[in-house]
Amino acid sequence: MADALAKGLRNVVLDTTESSFIDGQEGVLLYRGYSIHDLAANASFEEVAYLLLHGSLPSRAALADFDARLRSQRSLPEPVVALIRIVAGGHPMDVLRTAVSALAAYDPDVGDGSPAANLRKAERLTAQLPAIVAAHDRLRRGLEPLAPRADLGHAANFLYLLQGEKPSEEAAAAMDLDFLLHAEHGANASSFAARVTASTLSDLHAAVTSAIGTLKGPLHGGAAEAVMRMALAIGEPERAPAYVRARQRDRENRIMGFGHRVYKVEDPRARHMRAKSHALSESLGQAKWYAILEAVEKEMARYQRHGIYVNVDFFAGSVYYLLDIPEDLFVPIFAIGRAPGWCLQVFEQLADNVLIRPLLRYEGPTDLEYTPLDRR
Amino acid sequence: MADALAKGLRNVVLDTTESSFIDGQEGVLLYRGYSIHDLAANASFEEVAYLLLHGSLPSRAALADFDARLRSQRSLPEPVVALIRIVAGGHPMDVLRTAVSALAAYDPDVGDGSPAANLRKAERLTAQLPAIVAAHDRLRRGLEPLAPRADLGHAANFLYLLQGEKPSEEAAAAMDLDFLLHAEHGANASSFAARVTASTLSDLHAAVTSAIGTLKGPLHGGAAEAVMRMALAIGEPERAPAYVRARQRDRENRIMGFGHRVYKVEDPRARHMRAKSHALSESLGQAKWYAILEAVEKEMARYQRHGIYVNVDFFAGSVYYLLDIPEDLFVPIFAIGRAPGWCLQVFEQLADNVLIRPLLRYEGPTDLEYTPLDRR
Repeated sequence: MADALAKGLRNVVLDTTESSFIDGQEGVLLYRGYSIHDLAANASFEEVAYLLLHGSLPSRAALADFDARLRSQRSLPEPVVALIRIVAGGHPMDVLRTAVSALAAYDPDVGDGSPAANLRKAERLTAQLPAIVAAHDRLRRGLEPLAPRADLGHAANFLYLLQGEKPSEEAAAAMDLDFLLHAEHGANASSFAARVTASTLSDLHAAVTSAIGTLKGPLHGGAAEAVMRMALAIGEPERAPAYVRARQRDRENRIMGFGHRVYKVEDPRARHMRAKSHALSESLGQAKWYAILEAVEKEMARYQRHGIYVNVDFFAGSVYYLLDIPEDLFVPIFAIGRAPGWCLQVFEQLADNVLIRPLLRYEGPTDLEYTPLDRR
Repeated sequence: MADALAKGLRNVVLDTTESSFIDGQEGVLLYRGYSIHDLAANASFEEVAYLLLHGSLPSRAALADFDARLRSQRSLPEPVVALIRIVAGGHPMDVLRTAVSALAAYDPDVGDGSPAANLRKAERLTAQLPAIVAAHDRLRRGLEPLAPRADLGHAANFLYLLQGEKPSEEAAAAMDLDFLLHAEHGANASSFAARVTASTLSDLHAAVTSAIGTLKGPLHGGAAEAVMRMALAIGEPERAPAYVRARQRDRENRIMGFGHRVYKVEDPRARHMRAKSHALSESLGQAKWYAILEAVEKEMARYQRHGIYVNVDFFAGSVYYLLDIPEDLFVPIFAIGRAPGWCLQVFEQLADNVLIRPLLRYEGPTDLEYTPLDRR
């Protein structure tokens, strides 16, 4: 009973991993040994998804096969579209969670929890998540879902399904980079929730459903939305310093997109989203959004006695905004990118599984006497 | 990097609690300070649900109000029934998970995460879970869901919704006791999953959805089903010893319903399910099922060098079987009983929240060089 409390499991090392190496002090992130910077500069989301799910970078032929499997599995079963139609009034994360939960019953491998079946399910879920998010957005706008385009990559097809036209190469590349940067990040809360669910030997769809429900919370997935709302509220770059100063005096109402549970220096993913935000702002003739964020970051640096730096979400919101994506889809987009990482964490949990169940220390009475209802 | 691994979080104390006191060495279970034995002997599920959600035993008036709120909220929104119709071919736990996830959008307090709203949501979910399980079971049998009966208690109404006739008092009391015994059990895997989801400040429906997905796994919720299948396979009490002996030599295929992650003596809930199984077996003229389980327990005692005792699930399966409940509803019934406990764990997590996110120790390469696709 004298054990120290491990609230938030902050310094608890759950297990070993070969998924991500994260050095929060040095700002290093590796996916399966490869620098996030090399991957961001050179690889596609599909290539990274293959790396995460299959364990090594694909040959050209293996990537083509993998990509073909993704493209062929992008359509949703008709009953799941009908179900999305029913719940279309809900929050996009609630709809995504409900639809993924429902997909379990329509998976050809339902009931098969073998590693090979789980890998097939993981590829299917990776392919299906964008279709759910896009179908829901169209249905709530009174439009019919579109059929996927097999001639487009993962990111481009998502933008097409959402917006009804083939995106520019620049837009598709920005979406692709965003998915890639969000694809995996160790035992973060949503991936950990997936591991807890999988640890009872429940199924992969249940684990990913838990992850989606967990990602929905503003302490995990909500910062990109909050940052873009801030940028819109600031409106012009020259107003940023005063806005930041006012917020510094308001502890309850802090600036989002700064700080990270693990990174104590700049989140290594942020530089790539910063560059993409900058480039898109310029090329779309909306330079002020990037300028506002830059001004906020610069002003915040004046208050950073404790070294609080931007995280991946800080510039992500502006990229989504510039891609004309509705604000409440920012977290679902995070989910689309994270799908391979969630599945990888489940695979690792199942490879050497122990039921995840901590203890609680009881601090209440132990001797209450039951009084019959009539004497209360 | 030298930290010890905490696989399964086996000895990790996550937090303090005022929910359950569990002494695994002495076989003690208290709900908020009250002995499970006193509650099992005297209280109804509704009374215990009030105790768990509201923090103290209710007065007669408070219990009447609480019960009236439960009774008035047992109907499902029509769109959720339509959704259950769509996914009716799925596993009952997948359907329950999907329907609870969908209910988020129809809750009058959607978007309100205040303690008062969460308490209202918890009462609603407690009232709605039986309706989902029963509606699904009827729909998959080609029958229409029934309207709830406001003149019946929680357990009796569930059996009515499922079977279409008012249950006997004995059947209703057995179901009530079963719900009561399953209502709360600390940071077990499903309740812990609910806490992880809630720790990002996601919503209560998301947390309960995670819990349902986690409970589905055979390492958590599946033992009652497995024990009853075993009893059916044994068929006659005199065959039990040989069956147990054969299984003792087969480590891969062990007898279910024995042992518990926390209890190192007999699970204190088991005695009440044992008595109920015995009584129902006798009164329904099916004495052999209890006799088979008794014979298995007796034979197992000969092999218990390490002190492995029956858990709550060992006799639960026979009670459900005698109540004429289909085997694949045994785990959903566990979920119906656990609903207040899941909500209580979420309330406690939110009362002093820290994002739950452990660490993983990376044990892979850290210096892989990215080779362009053409050179692989």
